[in-house]
Amino acid sequence: MGRRYAIIGTGALGGFYGGRLAKAGCEVHFLLHSDYEHVRKHGLRIDSVGGDFILPNVHAYARAEDMPPCDVVAVALKTTSNDLLAELLPPVIADDGVVLVLQNGLGIEEQVARIVGPERVMGGLCFLCSSKVGPGHIRHLDYGYISLAEYDSQARPRGITERMREIGGDLQAADVRIQYCEDLVLARWKKLIWNVPFNGLSVLLDTTTDRIMADEHSRALAEALMREVSAAATASAGREIEETFIRSQLDDTARMAPYSPSMLLDYRAGRPMEIEAIFGAPMRAAADAKCAVPRIETLYRLLKYIDQGGRRGRTL
Amino acid sequence: MGRRYAIIGTGALGGFYGGRLAKAGCEVHFLLHSDYEHVRKHGLRIDSVGGDFILPNVHAYARAEDMPPCDVVAVALKTTSNDLLAELLPPVIADDGVVLVLQNGLGIEEQVARIVGPERVMGGLCFLCSSKVGPGHIRHLDYGYISLAEYDSQARPRGITERMREIGGDLQAADVRIQYCEDLVLARWKKLIWNVPFNGLSVLLDTTTDRIMADEHSRALAEALMREVSAAATASAGREIEETFIRSQLDDTARMAPYSPSMLLDYRAGRPMEIEAIFGAPMRAAADAKCAVPRIETLYRLLKYIDQGGRRGRTL
Repeated sequence: MGRRYAIIGTGALGGFYGGRLAKAGCEVHFLLHSDYEHVRKHGLRIDSVGGDFILPNVHAYARAEDMPPCDVVAVALKTTSNDLLAELLPPVIADDGVVLVLQNGLGIEEQVARIVGPERVMGGLCFLCSSKVGPGHIRHLDYGYISLAEYDSQARPRGITERMREIGGDLQAADVRIQYCEDLVLARWKKLIWNVPFNGLSVLLDTTTDRIMADEHSRALAEALMREVSAAATASAGREIEETFIRSQLDDTARMAPYSPSMLLDYRAGRPMEIEAIFGAPMRAAADAKCAVPRIETLYRLLKYIDQGGRRGRTL
Repeated sequence: MGRRYAIIGTGALGGFYGGRLAKAGCEVHFLLHSDYEHVRKHGLRIDSVGGDFILPNVHAYARAEDMPPCDVVAVALKTTSNDLLAELLPPVIADDGVVLVLQNGLGIEEQVARIVGPERVMGGLCFLCSSKVGPGHIRHLDYGYISLAEYDSQARPRGITERMREIGGDLQAADVRIQYCEDLVLARWKKLIWNVPFNGLSVLLDTTTDRIMADEHSRALAEALMREVSAAATASAGREIEETFIRSQLDDTARMAPYSPSMLLDYRAGRPMEIEAIFGAPMRAAADAKCAVPRIETLYRLLKYIDQGGRRGRTL
């Protein structure tokens, strides 16, 4: 029998990956909040560049306690709701199950490890452009691959494990590209190299990645922010990020189609932004290591102000 | 016979101070651009917290070449138009006249000194809240005092001179409070202590000073920016700004009524912002002195992007 999956948070991310797994024949249980009634009656609808599909009948739940124990519990909430995890995860995870953290940012796996134990945590870094456009209705615009990596309570590289390959195999069968990473900590910091500048600047300048890269000042700022993230990775976690990686992140972003980072989508929709996971956590890691990150801190503080609804034009 | 005044740029600043001088009986010649026809026909109208008045007949000019030689040439353009000064000043200044720089920011007096000679330059730091609300129509909302200080080509304190007292006397007779400063360089840097954080943050957050001070994050950022300005003043000009001055600037701003800094007014009206004078010049002074000012640089770059019309909601 195959692995049983739980999707905690059926939005742009969870709806897409969970939908793909269910379409491929996996047993998938979806936890929903505001869309529960709609999805229970009408199922999920995924419009994807890889092919549209509808799942008319899905296992939909409004409460974690009603879900069966699952082998893989994918966390796909916004990190701004992560205070719910202590309540949501224990009823859903099977004794030998694993929580797969699909969220952005630093320090989430530690938080999950405190709830379910360090041996039951895996990270999944999603490179996906999708959004929820209506109840139970996801639009997948581009990308989609996941980097899998084991969590280690001492922040050591854990290599590629058998269960990574099993979960990766399920996802590949569901038409999701998979990368296996030996070092979760390095992978998380490398993702921040992109996420810090482009999420932050897109909100502050209310614009897409192409325009950030086209202007000499915002481009220089993006690069300076990347170097601060890199310095923080080295100082706080001993991870070296090569100069060529930073260059390729800049060059790839300059070449790619106009892109709205998730924080910009949240900002424009008046939703809370994932500031603590993407900015606060690396900032505090840097501070603990006595590494100055003044530009990250400046963006953090500007975003915190904006997140509280202070900037004109934003819904209060 | 009294001193003859020229006002180069008859807007929120020049219209107010020039209007007050003319009302007090001084001979004042006004250079105008877009409002020339209107002011020639209808004069100037000043609505002021200190008393409204109308000057039905003023000496109005559309071209500097038409103006008579003046003893005091007050520069009240936006600094974004300062490339015009080389053309505007020589025809207007009397042989023993002085150019009084009423603008914000660093390095303007140097620029004027290259045009008229270092002995013919004085700085006037304006603490004024006013705006132009229509052609030849100025609204004065609060404050209004001017700090006068002599320019020195070697950046030394020049003390209080006789001509400072003469010009100060004319302004006092026109109901303008005057402070005499011995050290122009220190006065300019002290003004930046306020101007850098509150002009910059008000635009980035599209908000007034009271809200910047009420939020813990924007307030902390304002304070951190003040310390960078202070460090730059010490490193680049050898001027020490006392901690008590920074504290009083913060406390006074927290106590004062909601205030829209001039850069916010310019931003909201879609006008060019004075980024180079207020941010670019101190940033370059700091760089020459190998003093890192990453927060000022971050604001500078964000503002430069916004000034080019890139942020949504701003007129392109």
